[in-house]
Amino acid sequence: MSFDIAKNAKAVKIASRNIAQQTSEQKNHLLERMAELIETNEQAILAENAKDISAGRDKGLSDAMLDRLLLTPERIADIAKAIREIVALPDPIGNIANMALRPNGIQVGKMRIPLGVIAMIYEARPNVTAEAAALSIKSGNATILRGGSEAIYSNLAIAQCLHQALEQLGIDKNVVSIVPDTSREVIEQLITLRESIDLVIPRGGEGLIRYVTENSQIPVIQHFKGVCHLYVDKFADLTKALNILVNGKVQKPSACNAFETLLVHQNIADTFLPMVSQTLAQHQVKVHACDKSLHFFNGALLASAADYHAEYLAPEIAIRVVDGFEQAIDHINEFTSDHTEVIVSQDTSRCQRFIRNINSSVVMANASSRFSDGGQLGLGSEIGISTSKLHAYGPMGLQSLTTEKFIVIGDGQIRD
Amino acid sequence: MSFDIAKNAKAVKIASRNIAQQTSEQKNHLLERMAELIETNEQAILAENAKDISAGRDKGLSDAMLDRLLLTPERIADIAKAIREIVALPDPIGNIANMALRPNGIQVGKMRIPLGVIAMIYEARPNVTAEAAALSIKSGNATILRGGSEAIYSNLAIAQCLHQALEQLGIDKNVVSIVPDTSREVIEQLITLRESIDLVIPRGGEGLIRYVTENSQIPVIQHFKGVCHLYVDKFADLTKALNILVNGKVQKPSACNAFETLLVHQNIADTFLPMVSQTLAQHQVKVHACDKSLHFFNGALLASAADYHAEYLAPEIAIRVVDGFEQAIDHINEFTSDHTEVIVSQDTSRCQRFIRNINSSVVMANASSRFSDGGQLGLGSEIGISTSKLHAYGPMGLQSLTTEKFIVIGDGQIRD
Repeated sequence: MSFDIAKNAKAVKIASRNIAQQTSEQKNHLLERMAELIETNEQAILAENAKDISAGRDKGLSDAMLDRLLLTPERIADIAKAIREIVALPDPIGNIANMALRPNGIQVGKMRIPLGVIAMIYEARPNVTAEAAALSIKSGNATILRGGSEAIYSNLAIAQCLHQALEQLGIDKNVVSIVPDTSREVIEQLITLRESIDLVIPRGGEGLIRYVTENSQIPVIQHFKGVCHLYVDKFADLTKALNILVNGKVQKPSACNAFETLLVHQNIADTFLPMVSQTLAQHQVKVHACDKSLHFFNGALLASAADYHAEYLAPEIAIRVVDGFEQAIDHINEFTSDHTEVIVSQDTSRCQRFIRNINSSVVMANASSRFSDGGQLGLGSEIGISTSKLHAYGPMGLQSLTTEKFIVIGDGQIRD
Repeated sequence: MSFDIAKNAKAVKIASRNIAQQTSEQKNHLLERMAELIETNEQAILAENAKDISAGRDKGLSDAMLDRLLLTPERIADIAKAIREIVALPDPIGNIANMALRPNGIQVGKMRIPLGVIAMIYEARPNVTAEAAALSIKSGNATILRGGSEAIYSNLAIAQCLHQALEQLGIDKNVVSIVPDTSREVIEQLITLRESIDLVIPRGGEGLIRYVTENSQIPVIQHFKGVCHLYVDKFADLTKALNILVNGKVQKPSACNAFETLLVHQNIADTFLPMVSQTLAQHQVKVHACDKSLHFFNGALLASAADYHAEYLAPEIAIRVVDGFEQAIDHINEFTSDHTEVIVSQDTSRCQRFIRNINSSVVMANASSRFSDGGQLGLGSEIGISTSKLHAYGPMGLQSLTTEKFIVIGDGQIRD
C-alpha cells in the first residue's frame, strides 16, 4: 500500500485548527454521534474484526494476542460507553489561570489550549482507536492513529464510524486520520514530520518505544516499564503490608503497576517474611530472594541484580532485606523505572521522607500500587502513563493533551 | 582535549539527588555564597576574560560578538545581582497542589519536583553560565553547561567560584558541571545520554538548535525564531496602534519579541498607512509592502512570501493590507513562528476572538510585543522562550525547570 504520510499529516494539521475552535457543546455532540454510530454499525465492525481474527490465527498469534484483538457485541458496547464517559469529563480548553495585573496595568494570564496534532503509534487493540480519537477530540486536538497490521480491518471499520460522525456535523474529517499503511517505513517517516505533528505517543513493546524515542524529531511521551517497589518499614502495620503486597503483586501481575520488588526492613524480617512466604506460596508466586531472606522461602532462587531490574509481569517477585530506611531509598533510586513506589509505615515522618525523597511519577504511603492508574487517581479516562518527566509524568488524563499560552490584555501600554 | 561526557553526566545524575533534597534555605545560602565568590574573584575572572577577548580578536570575531563576550567590573556586579534576584524568587519545589480525597479514602495530590539533570548548550555569553547554574540550583536541578569555545576561559573562571561555593557548603560539586571540551563531538554524544540527562536546552543560532532538535534522544525545549505579528483592526485606536508599532519594531529590533510583520485592515489603510509611513521613515525602518500598500511608502520593496517568513532582527518590516479579520487570522496561522502576536482594536469581541483563535505562545490585545519576556510577564528570571508546545510554551521561568509527581496517602487501602 502506498500512502503519503507527509501529505496526510499536513491535512491533519489544517484540520487541527478546526477542532481547536469547536465549543465544548459541539465536541460533546460529535462524540455522542460517534458513540451512536459505533453502536448502530456493530454488525459491520464485527464482520471486519472477524477478518483480523482469521488472519491472526493464520499468522499464529498467541491466544492472549487474539483475545486482545477480539471484538464482541459487549466489547463494542464498552467502546461506546468509554466515549460517553469522555463526553462527561470537563473540557480543559479555554480555562484561564492566574490572571494578574502587572505594575504597568497589563493583565497577564495563561489560557489552556490544545497541543495541535497528536500521533499515536500502537499495537493490536481496536478499542484504542476509538478511545484515543475521543480523548483527542475532547481536548481539541486532531489525531493521527497508526495501529498495528493485526487490527487493520477493525480499525478501518471503527474509523468509518468516526468519519461519518465528522461529516454529519460538517467538521473536517482529517480531525481523525487512520493510517491505512501498517509498514515500519510509515513510522520512520511520521516521526520526522515536526512541522505538522506536535506529539508522538508510542504504546506497545519496549522495542517500538525505544525505536521511536531514539529516532523521533518530534517530542515523545513514553512509558518504558514499571518496576514498582514496596518498602515495608520497621514501623509498618504488617497486616496492612501483607494486604498491599498481595493486592499489588497478585491481583493483576501483567499490569505495569504491579509490584516487582519487595524491600523489608531487617528489624521486622523475622516476623514479616514467614507471613510473606506462606501467602506468596498460596498464590504460587515465584520468589527471587537475597541471601538474608532466601531461607524463608521454599524453592526460591538467589536474587541477582538482573532480578532487581526485572519487570516480571507475572506471579514472580524479587525480595531483599535492607538494613534501614536509607538503604531502601538507595535501592529504589538505583533500580527505579520512575513508575510507582510504596512505603508501608505507621511512622508519619518516615512516610513524609519517603514521599519527599523518591521522585518516581507516583509515590505512595500505605496504599496499593494498583491505584497508580488514571481512573483510580481521579483523572477520568487515561491516555497512557509517562515515565519521563517532561510535560507529563505518571498517568495522563485529558490535561496532558493540552498546553498553556500566555494572554496579555492591555490598553495601549508600551515598554519603557 | 579529551573529556568523558558520559562518565561526567552519570556523576551529575548522582549529584542531582543531593541538590533535589536541599531545603530552600540551604539553596539560597549556596546561591548567596556563589554571588559573593563571584564578586571577590572579580580580578581573576576579568583576567581570564581578557584571554577570551584577545583570542576572539585574533579569530576576527565581530564587534557585536566581542561585546557580548566582554566582562567588566560592572557586568560582574550584574551577574552577582542576577543571582541574588534568583535567591529572592519563591522556591517551587515541594509545593502540593489539589490534594483531594478519593471515594475509597486515599488522598491524591501532585507535588512539584525538580526535573533532575538539565543540559544547556549555548554560545558566547559568560553571564549565562552563572545564571543558568543559579536557576537550576534554585529549582533543585543539577546542570551540565556546555558553553562555546569563545568564552571558555571566562566560563571556567566563573565555574571555579561556583564549585568553591558548593565545596564550602559540603554539596556535591557535580551539581554544576562545566564541560571543558568545546568540540562539536561532545554535543553529539551529550544528546544521546538519556539515562543521565532529563532535558536539553540549546540556545544560539538556528543551525545549532535545528541540529539538537533533529538528533537529540533527550527531550529538547527550543526556540527557533520570533516572527511576531501586529494586526491593526478596523476598530483600532490608531494612536495606540502607532505607539505599539514603534515600540515593538524600533526599541530593540534585534530582540526575538520585535515585530516583523504589520497587518492592516483595509478600511483604515488610507488613514493609518500614511501615519505609519511617516513614522517608520523617521526611524529609518526599511519596508517590504504588499501591492495594496506599496504606494504609501517611499523606496519600499514589494513584499514576497519570504518577507512574511522573515525574522529581520533589524529595522526592517513587512506590511500587508488584509480584507478583514479572518484574513489576518489566516495570515498569522500560515506564517506564525508561535512566538507573539498582537491585535490592536477597541472592539472587545474581536480582541477575544483573536486571543481565542491564535495559539501562539503569547497572544496580546492592545499592548507591545516587547512585553513578551519572562521578567515583564512576572515570571522572575527567564531561562529562555519555548516556541514548541510540549512542557513549556512561551517565556520560561523557574517552574519550567520542574515537573509534578503524584503522591498518594492511604491507610492500608487496596484495589477491588
